[in-house]
Amino acid sequence: MFSPVIQKLIGIFSKFPTVGPRTANRFVFYLLKKPKEEIKEFIYAISDLKNKIKFCKLCFLPFEGEEDLCQICKNKTRDRNVLCVVEKESDLESIERTGKYKGLYFILGGTMSPLRKKEKKEIRETEFLKRIKDQEVKEIIIALNPTTEGESTSLYLERLAKKENKKTTRLGRGLPLGAELEYADEETLASALEGRK
Amino acid sequence: MFSPVIQKLIGIFSKFPTVGPRTANRFVFYLLKKPKEEIKEFIYAISDLKNKIKFCKLCFLPFEGEEDLCQICKNKTRDRNVLCVVEKESDLESIERTGKYKGLYFILGGTMSPLRKKEKKEIRETEFLKRIKDQEVKEIIIALNPTTEGESTSLYLERLAKKENKKTTRLGRGLPLGAELEYADEETLASALEGRK
Amino acid sequence: MFSPVIQKLIGIFSKFPTVGPRTANRFVFYLLKKPKEEIKEFIYAISDLKNKIKFCKLCFLPFEGEEDLCQICKNKTRDRNVLCVVEKESDLESIERTGKYKGLYFILGGTMSPLRKKEKKEIRETEFLKRIKDQEVKEIIIALNPTTEGESTSLYLERLAKKENKKTTRLGRGLPLGAELEYADEETLASALEGRK
Amino acid sequence: MFSPVIQKLIGIFSKFPTVGPRTANRFVFYLLKKPKEEIKEFIYAISDLKNKIKFCKLCFLPFEGEEDLCQICKNKTRDRNVLCVVEKESDLESIERTGKYKGLYFILGGTMSPLRKKEKKEIRETEFLKRIKDQEVKEIIIALNPTTEGESTSLYLERLAKKENKKTTRLGRGLPLGAELEYADEETLASALEGRK
Repeated sequence: MFSPVIQKLIGIFSKFPTVGPRTANRFVFYLLKKPKEEIKEFIYAISDLKNKIKFCKLCFLPFEGEEDLCQICKNKTRDRNVLCVVEKESDLESIERTGKYKGLYFILGGTMSPLRKKEKKEIRETEFLKRIKDQEVKEIIIALNPTTEGESTSLYLERLAKKENKKTTRLGRGLPLGAELEYADEETLASALEGRK
Repeated sequence: MFSPVIQKLIGIFSKFPTVGPRTANRFVFYLLKKPKEEIKEFIYAISDLKNKIKFCKLCFLPFEGEEDLCQICKNKTRDRNVLCVVEKESDLESIERTGKYKGLYFILGGTMSPLRKKEKKEIRETEFLKRIKDQEVKEIIIALNPTTEGESTSLYLERLAKKENKKTTRLGRGLPLGAELEYADEETLASALEGRK
Repeated sequence: MFSPVIQKLIGIFSKFPTVGPRTANRFVFYLLKKPKEEIKEFIYAISDLKNKIKFCKLCFLPFEGEEDLCQICKNKTRDRNVLCVVEKESDLESIERTGKYKGLYFILGGTMSPLRKKEKKEIRETEFLKRIKDQEVKEIIIALNPTTEGESTSLYLERLAKKENKKTTRLGRGLPLGAELEYADEETLASALEGRK
Repeated sequence: MFSPVIQKLIGIFSKFPTVGPRTANRFVFYLLKKPKEEIKEFIYAISDLKNKIKFCKLCFLPFEGEEDLCQICKNKTRDRNVLCVVEKESDLESIERTGKYKGLYFILGGTMSPLRKKEKKEIRETEFLKRIKDQEVKEIIIALNPTTEGESTSLYLERLAKKENKKTTRLGRGLPLGAELEYADEETLASALEGRK
């Protein structure tokens, strides 16, 4: 019932993560009400994303600048001996926000499901192998989600790191802030007991 | 921590309806992974929305075309004696989807909260008054949401229509498909009893 | 790990509607902390339920008293010409709370699923047939939930009533208080349009 | 509208943990449909709870038997040097279910809110003090929920234990099974980083 131009844009927004057709609809009617100036600004911002952003050669964080390295990787005060492997940009952001980590990162770009091993091409395996060969890297913290996919990918990365004689660690398991023992799963509770201090 | 270009776009998406900062984040990283072609297509779709879409002179539905009227308003087979007032485009779409309505529409563009009467400028009041003066309009179905805002706006529109000696009706109240009497509010249940058939 | 006496009571509570093992657990530890007096009071209340409560001969509402009829059925001011059929006690309570209904009730005791017709034995079919033979009953309001089970049971009761030449009605369909057109299903919206006033 | 006997029992059930008036309603109508035999069984189970269950002299676990001690406390194979303090019975059950803990327990019976220190009378403080004086107790694992109340109570117990020169530990913090870094709070993530292995 809506015109092709509107349908087209609804279709594009519908493929955005977490967006269904109804929300896509709302996005389009929201944009229709915006003045021309704001639409221009929106279009410029999207163009800039494609034209000005590049990916860091070391960690693959998207950044803006003339150099090859992002702010974190070129920061001389960070500890080059520790490399924290995360799945995606927002995980890196979460760890930075703690203010407790001073090493470098590597963004893997995805995880592998335990069954479909071929998917491993969706992760930056070659780049990871190249990165950990760096003599400076002494410890690799594998900071993937403690989910089935995260666990199976962690195992895979640990094996790759072992071949290079690199030490790997994983994030500690336990009870998160606000948890209740009554609802904790047995594995988490066992880890919390073992890791008591 | 992310670059200004990324922050800028996250900021724009954060203002989209239903979108918070975390989702805006995901949208940007989703776009970053898209090939140039798809980004171009996205930008074109947004430009087209602003350049090719206009609003129907009668009902204010956004549409694409040379004429002044949308597909519904220029459709000779629709009943010009009934005018259904809806808040927004997607409400019109919901009613069209029932396939039971053959009259015309008027998109009000918003509702007024019961307290802040000044907000009435956010609704197309002047356009509504002009539209209902049309001799052909015999019945005005006020099809706003049965919420506080919808009710108070309905009352306001009914008063305007009365001055023009136009008959108004409202959508029937009752139990929706799948409802349970046990959880129905008293007003809805009283309407369902009264409207039994 | 808990003693048999505790396990036994957890088992009984686990079968209560909406109660799972964890909640049943909490109920038992809640009772363990109560003083003897309160436990006695609880036990008396349960005994009284079984010893003092009987079911109304006409409508099957549980009540307490010497007579055969509940407060509603023996109330001379209620309209004996209208009989409202509900699934369960709490539905009757919901309708009473509207203050808009002055007729009598019949508690069906359940609904039939559309497929398993044999289940009809779970509803008070014989009692319903006997009840509607009453000359005073002129209109039967079938006030079952507008769900699949409710609909299929309503159809069945309508057929039974037709054989007795009794008029049946159903609760009106439409938008409930607080609904949004955007999220209403097509059938409900079509009913709301048709039932406009 | 319901009779006093029914209202009375609805009132009692309404005070059960997690139960509101509507659920209390459903419980009563559920019981009304049960045969006399099952009601008797229910009443016996409640009586038994009060008459046969006593609380372990050492850990305060409710149990059934002639002795003063529960199955865990009288079990010679359990490690008498470790004492795990939990808030309530179901927390003890959760830890037992891991199969990883071989020490003894102490059920505190509640927690204190950080502000209302007077509430500390709601916890078994005197009994705790007496219990930890036991020469055999070498480590006290304070296994309270990592919530505000749990934390403030843990601090309080640690101070009491310190006066007795007893070592205390707490459950390890970290990411639970199935967690996502993106949604983890900073404190939990910092603990997970620090506790990596």
